Amino acid sequence: VGGGLEHFFETRQLTERLCEPLETEDYGLQAMANTSPAKWHLAHTTWFFETFILSPFCPGYRPFHPAFEHLFNSYYNGVGKPYPRDQRGLLSRPGVEEVYRYRAYVDAAMAELLSAPGDGEADIRRRTELGCHHEQQHQELLLTDLKYCWFQNPLYPVYTPLNGDGTGDSGTMDWLPLVAGVRSIGARADEADGQDSFCFDNELPRHRQYIEASELADGLVTNAEFMAFIEDDGYRRPELWLADGWAACEARRGDMDRAAPLYWLRENGQWLEYTLHGLLPLAPHRPVCHVSAYEADAYARWAGCRLPTEFEWEVASAGWGHDAAANGAGQFLGRDQLHPLSAAGSAPADRLLGRAWQWTSSAYAPYPGFRTAAGAIGEYNGKFMANQLVLRGGSCVTSRSHYRDSYRNFFYPPDQWQFTGIRLAREPA
Amino acid sequence: VGGGLEHFFETRQLTERLCEPLETEDYGLQAMANTSPAKWHLAHTTWFFETFILSPFCPGYRPFHPAFEHLFNSYYNGVGKPYPRDQRGLLSRPGVEEVYRYRAYVDAAMAELLSAPGDGEADIRRRTELGCHHEQQHQELLLTDLKYCWFQNPLYPVYTPLNGDGTGDSGTMDWLPLVAGVRSIGARADEADGQDSFCFDNELPRHRQYIEASELADGLVTNAEFMAFIEDDGYRRPELWLADGWAACEARRGDMDRAAPLYWLRENGQWLEYTLHGLLPLAPHRPVCHVSAYEADAYARWAGCRLPTEFEWEVASAGWGHDAAANGAGQFLGRDQLHPLSAAGSAPADRLLGRAWQWTSSAYAPYPGFRTAAGAIGEYNGKFMANQLVLRGGSCVTSRSHYRDSYRNFFYPPDQWQFTGIRLAREPA
Amino acid sequence: VGGGLEHFFETRQLTERLCEPLETEDYGLQAMANTSPAKWHLAHTTWFFETFILSPFCPGYRPFHPAFEHLFNSYYNGVGKPYPRDQRGLLSRPGVEEVYRYRAYVDAAMAELLSAPGDGEADIRRRTELGCHHEQQHQELLLTDLKYCWFQNPLYPVYTPLNGDGTGDSGTMDWLPLVAGVRSIGARADEADGQDSFCFDNELPRHRQYIEASELADGLVTNAEFMAFIEDDGYRRPELWLADGWAACEARRGDMDRAAPLYWLRENGQWLEYTLHGLLPLAPHRPVCHVSAYEADAYARWAGCRLPTEFEWEVASAGWGHDAAANGAGQFLGRDQLHPLSAAGSAPADRLLGRAWQWTSSAYAPYPGFRTAAGAIGEYNGKFMANQLVLRGGSCVTSRSHYRDSYRNFFYPPDQWQFTGIRLAREPA
Amino acid sequence: VGGGLEHFFETRQLTERLCEPLETEDYGLQAMANTSPAKWHLAHTTWFFETFILSPFCPGYRPFHPAFEHLFNSYYNGVGKPYPRDQRGLLSRPGVEEVYRYRAYVDAAMAELLSAPGDGEADIRRRTELGCHHEQQHQELLLTDLKYCWFQNPLYPVYTPLNGDGTGDSGTMDWLPLVAGVRSIGARADEADGQDSFCFDNELPRHRQYIEASELADGLVTNAEFMAFIEDDGYRRPELWLADGWAACEARRGDMDRAAPLYWLRENGQWLEYTLHGLLPLAPHRPVCHVSAYEADAYARWAGCRLPTEFEWEVASAGWGHDAAANGAGQFLGRDQLHPLSAAGSAPADRLLGRAWQWTSSAYAPYPGFRTAAGAIGEYNGKFMANQLVLRGGSCVTSRSHYRDSYRNFFYPPDQWQFTGIRLAREPA
Repeated sequence: VGGGLEHFFETRQLTERLCEPLETEDYGLQAMANTSPAKWHLAHTTWFFETFILSPFCPGYRPFHPAFEHLFNSYYNGVGKPYPRDQRGLLSRPGVEEVYRYRAYVDAAMAELLSAPGDGEADIRRRTELGCHHEQQHQELLLTDLKYCWFQNPLYPVYTPLNGDGTGDSGTMDWLPLVAGVRSIGARADEADGQDSFCFDNELPRHRQYIEASELADGLVTNAEFMAFIEDDGYRRPELWLADGWAACEARRGDMDRAAPLYWLRENGQWLEYTLHGLLPLAPHRPVCHVSAYEADAYARWAGCRLPTEFEWEVASAGWGHDAAANGAGQFLGRDQLHPLSAAGSAPADRLLGRAWQWTSSAYAPYPGFRTAAGAIGEYNGKFMANQLVLRGGSCVTSRSHYRDSYRNFFYPPDQWQFTGIRLAREPA
Repeated sequence: VGGGLEHFFETRQLTERLCEPLETEDYGLQAMANTSPAKWHLAHTTWFFETFILSPFCPGYRPFHPAFEHLFNSYYNGVGKPYPRDQRGLLSRPGVEEVYRYRAYVDAAMAELLSAPGDGEADIRRRTELGCHHEQQHQELLLTDLKYCWFQNPLYPVYTPLNGDGTGDSGTMDWLPLVAGVRSIGARADEADGQDSFCFDNELPRHRQYIEASELADGLVTNAEFMAFIEDDGYRRPELWLADGWAACEARRGDMDRAAPLYWLRENGQWLEYTLHGLLPLAPHRPVCHVSAYEADAYARWAGCRLPTEFEWEVASAGWGHDAAANGAGQFLGRDQLHPLSAAGSAPADRLLGRAWQWTSSAYAPYPGFRTAAGAIGEYNGKFMANQLVLRGGSCVTSRSHYRDSYRNFFYPPDQWQFTGIRLAREPA
Repeated sequence: VGGGLEHFFETRQLTERLCEPLETEDYGLQAMANTSPAKWHLAHTTWFFETFILSPFCPGYRPFHPAFEHLFNSYYNGVGKPYPRDQRGLLSRPGVEEVYRYRAYVDAAMAELLSAPGDGEADIRRRTELGCHHEQQHQELLLTDLKYCWFQNPLYPVYTPLNGDGTGDSGTMDWLPLVAGVRSIGARADEADGQDSFCFDNELPRHRQYIEASELADGLVTNAEFMAFIEDDGYRRPELWLADGWAACEARRGDMDRAAPLYWLRENGQWLEYTLHGLLPLAPHRPVCHVSAYEADAYARWAGCRLPTEFEWEVASAGWGHDAAANGAGQFLGRDQLHPLSAAGSAPADRLLGRAWQWTSSAYAPYPGFRTAAGAIGEYNGKFMANQLVLRGGSCVTSRSHYRDSYRNFFYPPDQWQFTGIRLAREPA
Repeated sequence: VGGGLEHFFETRQLTERLCEPLETEDYGLQAMANTSPAKWHLAHTTWFFETFILSPFCPGYRPFHPAFEHLFNSYYNGVGKPYPRDQRGLLSRPGVEEVYRYRAYVDAAMAELLSAPGDGEADIRRRTELGCHHEQQHQELLLTDLKYCWFQNPLYPVYTPLNGDGTGDSGTMDWLPLVAGVRSIGARADEADGQDSFCFDNELPRHRQYIEASELADGLVTNAEFMAFIEDDGYRRPELWLADGWAACEARRGDMDRAAPLYWLRENGQWLEYTLHGLLPLAPHRPVCHVSAYEADAYARWAGCRLPTEFEWEVASAGWGHDAAANGAGQFLGRDQLHPLSAAGSAPADRLLGRAWQWTSSAYAPYPGFRTAAGAIGEYNGKFMANQLVLRGGSCVTSRSHYRDSYRNFFYPPDQWQFTGIRLAREPA
């Protein structure tokens, strides 16, 4: 049941289980402003329950520490001025143990509250559900941020050893046709209200979009395919690039090793890729990932295609969310496989879900009639609807239970540190 | 006739007429990378005709100067590496007189070619038409860039004295209802081919969009209205702002005079506004302009509204382009009035066209099926379809003949130096 | 004996003792490029012995870890390309424990070598002595860097509680006269060669300087005195500042809390100062510290004085080093007092040594005839002789045994994070 | 006579004569903050006479334009907040003609005042003399700034055609010995007071310095010699560089064309040098110029030498100023030769004066007992005594009458846009 004790504890425990391979020293790393230390993720997700549920709904609740409201606020101006985002790595105190005590303290209070929620039950359950999905997002970020930070270290730490190689042939890609017409987009209204389902406010309201006929690939672009783009001088041909993307390319000229996806390294003529399983030889049949939207767009243009819109993507994958939940379609977060696997012979839902987020050409914008919630919690999504693009499909570090057909992820076009890949689209022949 | 001699010369002469108030010293100013010197605009528009028409279609044509292909290329990588954009103000040579000679030289060659175009006539006329519209865009930029540069000078130069005050009451704003349904968006196919009409490639193809019901304001937000936002602490309330917009606000704290539209100055308790007519007392009934998309969006949220999408805007103003051309609706570029006038008692087309570009909430993106032209000329529009927003409606420095219903202007959300204003939208009650 | 086992182990152990109050999480902090993590200091000082003594002089020595030569090289280009200085905080691996194992490994090898140094004994002892003095410098940096990093944390961690208040009256300052004439400056030649003494290469050769008559203060400027400068609008009067210093002031306008020494905070009208003993009320009689050379110079000008040259400083304090070593003059590093104490009634050597480094007006430049050692070890000092100023006198975090009369410390004029204070000089009446 | 009419008009006229080759468009160029437009130099030198002489000493004097006090103030905070230095190129108004009218207006008032100075005569003459020397400094800057700005233009404008080639053999360099001892440094006191002589405050007071024995080169390093440094991988060997200089080298890696003095270009395997005579083949025997202090220092280290101190320089060239004035020793500013000539067979004074400023290793610091003048005019020199190095010897764009033995020029170590060259020093064998 949404917002129930079981889901709450499952989620909370997973976060801590994901931290098991970390040394104390790893918890504080912040290699760029976009990434946050693991310790901060542990604390901020806890702060969310304390600030939005325990403080307002639990009479007599005493916060664990008076300074944490400020220290672990991410961006909710309604709660007060957040601690500067780019300095989160400077908070050696509270230490890791104290943060775990903070988690236990809040978990205990939450357990008590959820057992006997009293008058505000509906709100408490709704916010608990939101808090769990919020924490799932931070679980994914915890892994992507850690990966980015460790990549700065010439020792290339291993999060977990590779289990199998995941490098089988990816099979032959095919095209899925889309028929023109008016389609419904977004989560169903009952999904937002019901306790069995959940969606973020940015997936609402369900509304209509006119879709022109098109074709979408039934799989992801592979490393081998992307390598062909590089070898065809893809990074040196301005005609393939959006102007802003080309400017980004030009800015890192002279460091031509960076004319490749993030985490690719060329050493002694061989291409390697840093993964959470360590530095590995580049596997040709795995999906390419850690590309910016500019790289995805340039690749698509080079291939005579384009990126899909988020509406095309959603229409073309109707029902896949159910397939993922009920039948295990897709890869998604698993302890042993933290890199996209190659996907020969699978069904499209399997090939496209939970491997690498797929850049769409759609700006992250409010759906017609979108409304934010009142108060600080309304800052969750809406205020980021500028300068970002929507991504769809989930990645190998996304929880399976976090995914649904209407899910909208969003990042800035130059961002590479998420597991971001490429799904092609084209006009019908 | 499109691409004909008369239109060509009208356009070319207007550019030079717009420069009449300039001193030689003014021609080289470049106060930021986004702005270009007037001299550069004069030369670059000429370069366009030389590069895309005379060189390929005029056998034996000898370029005016061998270095100009490089010096006056704006961003066409297909033509060669352009001279760095942010250093255009450093080109004291060629001098103003030589640039005018360059113009005369190219005009003479164009006149000869257009009189007897020979085999490539269709292409020549199409590119000449494109070159004229290109030059009209630069006429507008020439004025907005000059305004920005002069604003850095404490002497606040006057381009032309104010003629009348344009400060009459702006009347009462009303709401225009929009009915939900599938609508056609974009230029008609024949507009692109015909010689009597013209559109840029980014207005094509005409396609369908589903529009939800909404209401659009029939006029622009005024200075007085925007002042109420400021006085209600609009620049200090993060809940009104997109996150990126708030970050921009925070970055200029300490310089709170900048918590206002560009060109507003507070002196001895009085608000002034720098205009091409000099530094004037702020006129309450004139449309607010020189706001960023962030400021427009924050104002709209404060007013309980939102910005329209470009599709809503286009649907709500069908036929206005014809009204502007045939009946003189709207303000548009006139020698004497280079600032948006207040607009009491006028029809909506009159109140909304040719005064200030209106930020929409729509990302500048390709229409379904969009294709760029082959070769360097295909770099005209498509490669800028990232990180920018569409603006509609034309401004007081846009040529009337440059406007049409499907016209899409585009700038980055933080940009303020264009004549950019605010038209509100809202959901139906 | 210089370069002997005892001194070696004393020094090595002190470094580790200084780290006792640290949590594992504190070891990795790096709040700006100028500061290094404690863990890095622990490892780099060890690297010094491994690289410059064990590897060349200990046949068959096997480095502890092949990557450490790169990871813990500070700036010795002769040894290979150092790991980027501003990213030292990103090295979560090796962890703290492994670094301590690294230290133990190298210490054991050093103990063996020093017990039976064999042929290269003279070089080994000289380099061991250098390595110990090198490590003493890093002990001081370890504390100043930690202080800077902790200051970013709103919890203001305490390194060790305040023991006594050190805020007694500082007594009356007097002037020490200096007679004009030719004086000898720099370390005695035998100091460099002998085993009982030591000096860095930058203190050599001993040479002559002509000193004009002057007077030097016999104590340091106090917080109360510096406060008078602030209250007299010292930070707002450009005529008091060097142009580069004024530019630095202007750059942080709007953050007028920073118009004060680093670590001063104004809260509810009261001035506080962050110290290694935590956030304390500003003590009026303690010496002012954490001022830049610009602040020191502006204060001096405001007081109708100037900063001394390093030659004046050295001449005026001849013999104090012996007094510090033999009679305990001065404050210097002690476990309980990690902030400059007030100094009423003491002798000048006592008031001026081991409290706060004193900015001189002398550029850090080579003495006439200065020569660097051959090889990478020659990069120790000489290459920094540009853009920095000499400081004299030692601070409350300098080891007493590290100080001598000819000691030259050096930092860039804007630097504030060292314990830097002000000693005034003036022309004779 | 110092401060007399004749000297005043000679100086004023030379400034205008130096502008004769300029087009109106050239007057406004500012390619970096360090450089100022020619128009600004014309106006600022005029502002100096208006502000410091006419306004205080000429009863009833009415400034030419009320805004010019602000617009053309360089850095005198005592006069009010100066217009931002890096935006001087944005002042298209006042135009060139108006600035010449400003000059004529002030010149007329000065002529009247100097003809009948009345009570304040001594001050007026002293300040007039100062204003003339100030204007001579700006004459030099006018040419060096223009050169830097024109260099950004691929057309490489020519200020004046080359007259002769100046590329004769530079002969054999010799060493001038310096004997150790106490020497007097700085201008003679009577030079400052007298009307026949002049010095800046920074050359005072005359004082003593102890000089160790050394040897100084009797000529400048040539292009051919510097080329040998480049070819010996000088720009790639960190051991040759000061740490700050090496960091500057590293920062421009990838643009290895810049691993050379400013204005050197490699085209099709040939080295060219941009000069005020246009782009010329690099002349091997001309003195190398436009090197930073870091480049000068690295070259010296490569050559087994060092840079001289400013005291050594002054002692070694005693009497040369008289030789330059009376016998025409040295090159100095001439209309036809605006680049250092090669200097075979000449006397040392001839080889070393008025060709290229010579970096010394001496920080620009106050002489013992230095005092600034009261009021804003005291900001002339003293406040720049931080982070800069002294240069000696004058250049090919320095007026002969501006030079004297005690003259101290000063720039920041990375600066290259002045005519800066290299004179070597070494310890006696």
